[in-house]
Amino acid sequence: SAAVPATSGAVNLAVVPGDGIGPEVTAEALKVLEVAAPADLKFERTTYDLGAERYLATGEVLPDAVLEEIRGQDAILLGAVGGKPNDPNLPPGILERGLLLRLRFELDHYVNLRPSRLFPGAASPLSEAVLGKGEIDFVVVREGTEGPYTGNGGALRVGTPAEVATEVSVNTAFGVERVIRDAFARARKRPRKKLTLVHKTNVLVNAGAVWWRLFEEIAAEFPDVTTDYSHIDAVMIYLTTDPQRFDVIVTDNLFGDIVTDLAAAITGGIGLAASGNVNPDRTAPSMFEPVHGSAPDIAGQQVADPTAAILSGALLLDHLGHPDAAAKIEAAVLADLAERTPDQARRTPEVGDAIAARVAG
Amino acid sequence: SAAVPATSGAVNLAVVPGDGIGPEVTAEALKVLEVAAPADLKFERTTYDLGAERYLATGEVLPDAVLEEIRGQDAILLGAVGGKPNDPNLPPGILERGLLLRLRFELDHYVNLRPSRLFPGAASPLSEAVLGKGEIDFVVVREGTEGPYTGNGGALRVGTPAEVATEVSVNTAFGVERVIRDAFARARKRPRKKLTLVHKTNVLVNAGAVWWRLFEEIAAEFPDVTTDYSHIDAVMIYLTTDPQRFDVIVTDNLFGDIVTDLAAAITGGIGLAASGNVNPDRTAPSMFEPVHGSAPDIAGQQVADPTAAILSGALLLDHLGHPDAAAKIEAAVLADLAERTPDQARRTPEVGDAIAARVAG
Ligand SMILES: CC(C)[C@H](C(=O)O)[C@@H](O)C(=O)O
Ligand SMILES: CC(C)[C@H](C(=O)O)[C@@H](O)C(=O)O
Repeated sequence: SAAVPATSGAVNLAVVPGDGIGPEVTAEALKVLEVAAPADLKFERTTYDLGAERYLATGEVLPDAVLEEIRGQDAILLGAVGGKPNDPNLPPGILERGLLLRLRFELDHYVNLRPSRLFPGAASPLSEAVLGKGEIDFVVVREGTEGPYTGNGGALRVGTPAEVATEVSVNTAFGVERVIRDAFARARKRPRKKLTLVHKTNVLVNAGAVWWRLFEEIAAEFPDVTTDYSHIDAVMIYLTTDPQRFDVIVTDNLFGDIVTDLAAAITGGIGLAASGNVNPDRTAPSMFEPVHGSAPDIAGQQVADPTAAILSGALLLDHLGHPDAAAKIEAAVLADLAERTPDQARRTPEVGDAIAARVAG
Repeated sequence: SAAVPATSGAVNLAVVPGDGIGPEVTAEALKVLEVAAPADLKFERTTYDLGAERYLATGEVLPDAVLEEIRGQDAILLGAVGGKPNDPNLPPGILERGLLLRLRFELDHYVNLRPSRLFPGAASPLSEAVLGKGEIDFVVVREGTEGPYTGNGGALRVGTPAEVATEVSVNTAFGVERVIRDAFARARKRPRKKLTLVHKTNVLVNAGAVWWRLFEEIAAEFPDVTTDYSHIDAVMIYLTTDPQRFDVIVTDNLFGDIVTDLAAAITGGIGLAASGNVNPDRTAPSMFEPVHGSAPDIAGQQVADPTAAILSGALLLDHLGHPDAAAKIEAAVLADLAERTPDQARRTPEVGDAIAARVAG
């Protein structure tokens, strides 16, 4: 893929703070973004009130007019969406399908990018014996517009003993090829140049066949990239006993969801995991968000860790063609993490201030 | 469920050693089974030559006549099946779908039972901080006859840029209800009496709805069992940071595949993980097998750990109504593990002999 021209001048940024801790962590991400952005880049922000609160108050999830407005922006920063667990007024899937996944699908975010790196100072639940094997630094390229996430399927005779419910995983050569190609291009740019396909080809033979075939075909165009394959179940073992083996992973939407939460867990937790929902063809704005949810149990207390949101801001700057500004944020987070101690209880804005100060220099 | 009458007299046991390390670990499982079984129980063994080798030599995977013979047996002990990775003569899925899954589906093994317990002495990749929280001892009840494993789906325009491949997850009230009911009954028999449903109800809304509805309905019949729900992605975090929270987990076929490999990894590895493919209605023989595969790379060297196969034998005895004999095997494994040291390299038969000797008393 060609080098990305750096955006300069005004950047129209859609901000979706969302629910729970979403607004708190988004505020810190914006704080750091402003400090890190090059002088000639000005964010023109529009804040969109979307999420559980709006839905509960108005019944609206993502009005078409709002979607079209967002489509006209240059990038999106999202906090987190989701209401209280088991709220009877908030059926499962309403917000996920209607807002988060709708944005990913409508804006063709076919590369869901999730870097995993164990920063010094971050607490991993893995033993010293595993961590001692070397650095953990890989990125998952999760397909974002197909697979079991399409909402295909349905249910018959709902609520009766004869109910049948189906979920259809849809895998097209079109969709699989473009994400695999993106993953190879990313692998080529990294020092180790290694790409692992993750699937379950021995059981899901139809979907597996198209992933496998295109992986092999595209590999021939990237002879400098080493390739590897793992079944999703084996990845569970590798990620906990030998995570160092991975460099870039490419996988489908559901396997990617699962793998990236495990990846986040072993590299210091979901409080640090950033993600980009990227439209590499730039036909619509890409969206950047922490992997964590809205954590309603700790909302409003300013105790959430904003690091994942801040790192998502770095991915946003990188996507806009400012890798140096992104690297400044990463370095600031790294330095901040190295000085964290387990008994230190900093409030959300304090963490944002500390990282912003380091970025400022 | 009613207490199971203990089988006595002759038990017709189908033995499927399979490929790779399968025959080596099966031999040890049988050795220990014979010693542990009550005096009035006699195993009449029939060995079935099935797996990659037979397929490569004859093109046969599971001839109908063989399946019908196996259907007439009282129980099945399986080693492992699977050939060398990427063997062009062995397309992915041939053995898995044609042999292993066919047996599970034809013999209605709707409860795929996978206990996870961190035995003292077993090496976990988790840190002391996580392990220090308490004992890890849970069991996964994985649905075995539905979900994304049904082989429903297909592909159109295969091999062209217009290919579309689908996989259909099929979830029936019939199938979901019976496995949830079995899981509740198992939870009720355990000291903590806690059952966690694992799914992805916020995305897979059709399948999720039937799992959720039946879970809630059946929970009302088991007021003494505490219930809980986790999304599959969150389970990745819990299993690595707080595995102690789980007692019994019930989930679908694919999520169960993934969760049980992670569970095996954190409790000392796949070399220790046993499983039962159980037909609780006893309309066909149940099948017991280690969770690990055929490990062709170390086959024929007598270096594989037979512990998982031996523990699968314990599950078999329990299923036949001999919990005391099963407990004897568990205790022997526990004692053996406690004395293992990392630098000790015992050969497969030595491990079997040592455990058999402890069972003999
Ligand atoms: C909230 C949910 C729909 C979402 C997903 O499954 O993709 C989340 O888990 C994620 O990983 O971003
Ligand atoms: C070999 C494969 C078909 C099987 C499965 O996916 O069920 C295995 O991974 C298991 O867990 O028993």
